[in-house]
Amino acid sequence: MKRIGKQTISFDSPPTILETASIVGPKEAQGPLAKYFDQCLEDEFWGEKTWEKAESKIIKETVNTVISKSGIAASDIDYCFAGDLLNQCISSSFGLRELNIPFFGVFGACSTFVESLCLASVFLDGKAASNVLCATSSHFCSAEKQFRFPLELGNQRPPTSQWTVTGSGAAIVSASGKGPYITAITPGKIVDMGIKDANNMGAAMAPAALDTLITHLQDLDRKPSYYDMIISGDLGYIGKEIVTELAETKGYNIKNNYEDCGVIIFDKEKQDTHSGGSGCACIGTTFSGYFFKQLRNRKLNRILLIATGALTNATTSQQGESIPGIAHAIAIEN
Amino acid sequence: MKRIGKQTISFDSPPTILETASIVGPKEAQGPLAKYFDQCLEDEFWGEKTWEKAESKIIKETVNTVISKSGIAASDIDYCFAGDLLNQCISSSFGLRELNIPFFGVFGACSTFVESLCLASVFLDGKAASNVLCATSSHFCSAEKQFRFPLELGNQRPPTSQWTVTGSGAAIVSASGKGPYITAITPGKIVDMGIKDANNMGAAMAPAALDTLITHLQDLDRKPSYYDMIISGDLGYIGKEIVTELAETKGYNIKNNYEDCGVIIFDKEKQDTHSGGSGCACIGTTFSGYFFKQLRNRKLNRILLIATGALTNATTSQQGESIPGIAHAIAIEN
Repeated sequence: MKRIGKQTISFDSPPTILETASIVGPKEAQGPLAKYFDQCLEDEFWGEKTWEKAESKIIKETVNTVISKSGIAASDIDYCFAGDLLNQCISSSFGLRELNIPFFGVFGACSTFVESLCLASVFLDGKAASNVLCATSSHFCSAEKQFRFPLELGNQRPPTSQWTVTGSGAAIVSASGKGPYITAITPGKIVDMGIKDANNMGAAMAPAALDTLITHLQDLDRKPSYYDMIISGDLGYIGKEIVTELAETKGYNIKNNYEDCGVIIFDKEKQDTHSGGSGCACIGTTFSGYFFKQLRNRKLNRILLIATGALTNATTSQQGESIPGIAHAIAIEN
Repeated sequence: MKRIGKQTISFDSPPTILETASIVGPKEAQGPLAKYFDQCLEDEFWGEKTWEKAESKIIKETVNTVISKSGIAASDIDYCFAGDLLNQCISSSFGLRELNIPFFGVFGACSTFVESLCLASVFLDGKAASNVLCATSSHFCSAEKQFRFPLELGNQRPPTSQWTVTGSGAAIVSASGKGPYITAITPGKIVDMGIKDANNMGAAMAPAALDTLITHLQDLDRKPSYYDMIISGDLGYIGKEIVTELAETKGYNIKNNYEDCGVIIFDKEKQDTHSGGSGCACIGTTFSGYFFKQLRNRKLNRILLIATGALTNATTSQQGESIPGIAHAIAIEN
């Protein structure tokens, strides 16, 4: 592999995304992408006593599903990269504790899935591994409880707020295979533009997405039109609009081929999620469920996946801090 | 690089640990290793209004110190790997948000520092980077508040409890240099033996440390005596004894060359920390402050650094869960 430009790494033997899997909650099951997910749950608990245990079960079963679908034995998976939004990433560590695969815990907030794919790609092209597992999860109820208010309080959500996706996405990436290939990665910098509204994560993360997008295009001397689609993780309606407008002021027209997973995972009219979906599982399930199949079916052949994360917690908001954002990008091509 | 045995990666061009830095709090400043740290703070706040902000400042200044000592321009550092114990790793993301270096958030609880060094090594030997920054932090007051009880409550600490180290350790690792070299890494699996006592982390993490130690030795066909010293991160007195005894039952005698950072960072007689030190900064500061200098001065020439982490949080303990442990190992040689 080699470094190109400021932040990008391109691969000599681009790793193949061999298989993906996704499990989602009941609200996502009523959304427009329902038919693309491997499993849709009927309730948020899935037989568990707490939301945290339910989230652990979701990531566990998603990982079991992707391993099963891939035909790769768990013992042939060299390393696992995973993380989530819960304090100390417990969904991943409890959900995957029986996996018996060397484990790298990753925290990039909602950018975790693509951060994991970035790390996996470097391991694979560097011959440090043959098969790698990447997984992430989020859960509306556990996230609301932890980051905002207990659901029982019945708080009114402001129009800028987003709806944390309940679900998990997982992928097995291999050193060899027939694609789709991860051809390049652009890991992002932390960008903090001073946004302090914990109910407007899209606005807080948009500058990081823009920074990574432009850096990626400049590093590889590409125009936005190189990609069939540029896909951000969970900027939602507000963040998507900000990125589109800011990109234009910088001379990049992404109006025709840019979409956000938070915008497409829920139905704007029928499902009231305000500014759209969010959470690690937003891009995790939308990519694993929908976009991966579009790549496989050659309906899309070149995509740029930009996962965004808000590197904040409830304490920092209470202490008057602004919200640092980050965005990691990977180019996936047939 | 190449994979060896079950979990180990050895490097064709072993990366050099170019420089380290460490800043510690007032209790560590009264301990036996005080003279090895770059800076000792007089109080836990360091002019900040909250413990969280103080911890962010500590990691920020430690990173500034290591960059300054290394002589490498910040603009020549390709990637940063960092994480900590605070919810959503805010110490790292807030402390390093002005760094302007592409950032990978890592969460391995108290194993985070060595997890970061593992990832950095793969990037460097794989030619994905020339210089990489690794950093971590922990803070006694923010950790007690978050994981156990507010300090103001004045809770009595049981004899098995450990004292979270206040401080930060940081290292710059480079693709080229004169050593000490990271020659091999053994990333660990999650190991959960059912320990539920949140005040006995040493016991919870010991089985993971043993698993990684034995796997490392088997993968490379080495005896414990290959190393001048085998060093675990923060098992403390209880965990150290468990690992020593369990290793013996497995046929490995580590009695003469095994030490734990949690045991040596505080004075057992004069400083009442019960089972010893803990936290990301325990191995972070002890390695960066003490062991790195021992390697540079050739007082030690081969060490195996095994950082241990308890992948738990306050909620899981309250929900009756056991404590999964993990341990990542790196071999460092002159």
